[in-house]
Amino acid sequence: MKPSKPAETQTATLAEIAREAGVSAPTVSKVLNGRADVAPATRTRVEELLRAHGYRRRRAEASRSPLIDLVFHELESAWALEVIRGVENVARAAGLSVVLSESAGRLTPGRTWADQVAARRPHGVVLVLSGLDEPQRALLTSRSIPFVVMDPAGDPGPDVPSIGATNWQGGLAATRHLLELGHTRIGAISGPSRMMCSRARIDGYRAALETAGLPADPSLVAAGDFHHDSGYRLGLELLGRPDRPTAVFAGNDLQALGLYEAARELGLRIPEDLSVVGFDDLPVARWVGPPLTTVRQPLTEMAEAAARLVLELGAEREERATRVELATSLVVRSSTDVSPALRR
Amino acid sequence: MKPSKPAETQTATLAEIAREAGVSAPTVSKVLNGRADVAPATRTRVEELLRAHGYRRRRAEASRSPLIDLVFHELESAWALEVIRGVENVARAAGLSVVLSESAGRLTPGRTWADQVAARRPHGVVLVLSGLDEPQRALLTSRSIPFVVMDPAGDPGPDVPSIGATNWQGGLAATRHLLELGHTRIGAISGPSRMMCSRARIDGYRAALETAGLPADPSLVAAGDFHHDSGYRLGLELLGRPDRPTAVFAGNDLQALGLYEAARELGLRIPEDLSVVGFDDLPVARWVGPPLTTVRQPLTEMAEAAARLVLELGAEREERATRVELATSLVVRSSTDVSPALRR
Repeated sequence: MKPSKPAETQTATLAEIAREAGVSAPTVSKVLNGRADVAPATRTRVEELLRAHGYRRRRAEASRSPLIDLVFHELESAWALEVIRGVENVARAAGLSVVLSESAGRLTPGRTWADQVAARRPHGVVLVLSGLDEPQRALLTSRSIPFVVMDPAGDPGPDVPSIGATNWQGGLAATRHLLELGHTRIGAISGPSRMMCSRARIDGYRAALETAGLPADPSLVAAGDFHHDSGYRLGLELLGRPDRPTAVFAGNDLQALGLYEAARELGLRIPEDLSVVGFDDLPVARWVGPPLTTVRQPLTEMAEAAARLVLELGAEREERATRVELATSLVVRSSTDVSPALRR
Repeated sequence: MKPSKPAETQTATLAEIAREAGVSAPTVSKVLNGRADVAPATRTRVEELLRAHGYRRRRAEASRSPLIDLVFHELESAWALEVIRGVENVARAAGLSVVLSESAGRLTPGRTWADQVAARRPHGVVLVLSGLDEPQRALLTSRSIPFVVMDPAGDPGPDVPSIGATNWQGGLAATRHLLELGHTRIGAISGPSRMMCSRARIDGYRAALETAGLPADPSLVAAGDFHHDSGYRLGLELLGRPDRPTAVFAGNDLQALGLYEAARELGLRIPEDLSVVGFDDLPVARWVGPPLTTVRQPLTEMAEAAARLVLELGAEREERATRVELATSLVVRSSTDVSPALRR
């Protein structure tokens, strides 16, 4: 039997899906509940029909486990712990437990993961990655499991509820701070350019330079990958130039630490010879020598907001796309100082 | 009805428990499955009888969710992420998901937590804290849910399966390294003395000094709490003395970083004026200036071992108490150098 065309509004009931699939209504129900005792071929057919009809379980039908799913693109991220803590705070207050998983280097979690989520029926899913592909979204939607994307690496699209931070403002504030200290040759080491957050930070950096009347020198901007090693490697290149910058805005704190190492290796003192600003304000930013001036991204609060939003969405009848950006703020410590030119 | 005396071996069946509690067998079954539709008083009575009889569910009866529970004493620990990653690795390979919770500053997780675990029936529980109290243990045992304690803060007792690291050997290796560099005044900043792991590290430190024929000077050993701030504060005290040590073994990497800050503040150079050894080998140890010599504790491997052990225990018919200690190893970087006395 061929699936009918996607319905514009949800019209198909569970009974209609069952009839179209040639199975009983309890069988469709079993598929929705992730039960194992359904033949794979039947299961696939029912899933296809659910997707084709844009079937969405009524809230009242959806029995839920006291769980929130939290999915990371990679648990390597040094800030993962801040995020976990935020989701954990909200979950505990709501009497829920957090199920943690990692999509292991793929930008969308695997199909198996979506099946597992459908089977365990959490209150919602917080994704710390770019998002879900269409079949995964359909799978969650058909089970009435809401999801929220936190700190999207790419553009999550206008119809996806998401929580971010004001990355552009952060880049602007970091660079203005350096300009106020009299720096005129200001370099930048960015995160990967496919990630919207790193683009936004660098755009803020450029806006600060341009509004100060300084043309941005493209050769002073190096594209890295948010890891310590890229800060080190690109730092050696930037600082090894005869016309090296006197200040560098790093894409995140880890890159800033890599830059510290490059400066040490080249015998440059921070902040006397080089000012450095990071991004994130991980705990380590306070502990390094000198303590790092950085743009604070409120990761725990962002994760709390994402978890609260996903619970709100679960309590509402209608879908709703929300984009919230929490404010970043500059934290001035000891890695920035007035330009060497002004001290001469 | 009064509970009978604890049985020496499990003799009571579910039917007997039901008879003694004056309820039906399905009601006992509901309690075991964490179902909400049982009157609280009934529930308490059944729980008491289950505990009094040392009831243990037969494996075949225990239907399980595809979950492993991972419980932290506190998610503040900078090494929590390494542990999460290890449990996640084993869970993923076994097709299971990880439920994360925090006992929020209490050394044993709250009663509510134990109820939630009993209701969700995971394959097992990995505890990153001192352990469970007796009622919690009875609750898990009666549901046939195995547990393993990782890196116990206190002594988990001989009948609790646990995974640790060779802390004593680590303290010995760290201190021997400093002795080989010619240091004779070697201080130590320890973790909290109620935690067995910090005692073991300091005992290893003392053993190295004594076998080298150097009497340990108790005034050079300061008791801290594993946080950055205690390393800084106790570091200022130790290094402010006229007869300051030329080397310090810190209880962990965070304390070592606090010590770095104290040294900077006092104008002491690392490693020229002061050698520092840490413990853990967190990623940050490689990134600080100078990169930190430290004792590597294989946290991810320990967490993997704990998760594997808990799955093994779940597959076995008999309880089994196992204590495994994984080896620590010294990682020499740039924060240690020959004693200033030898360089003069």
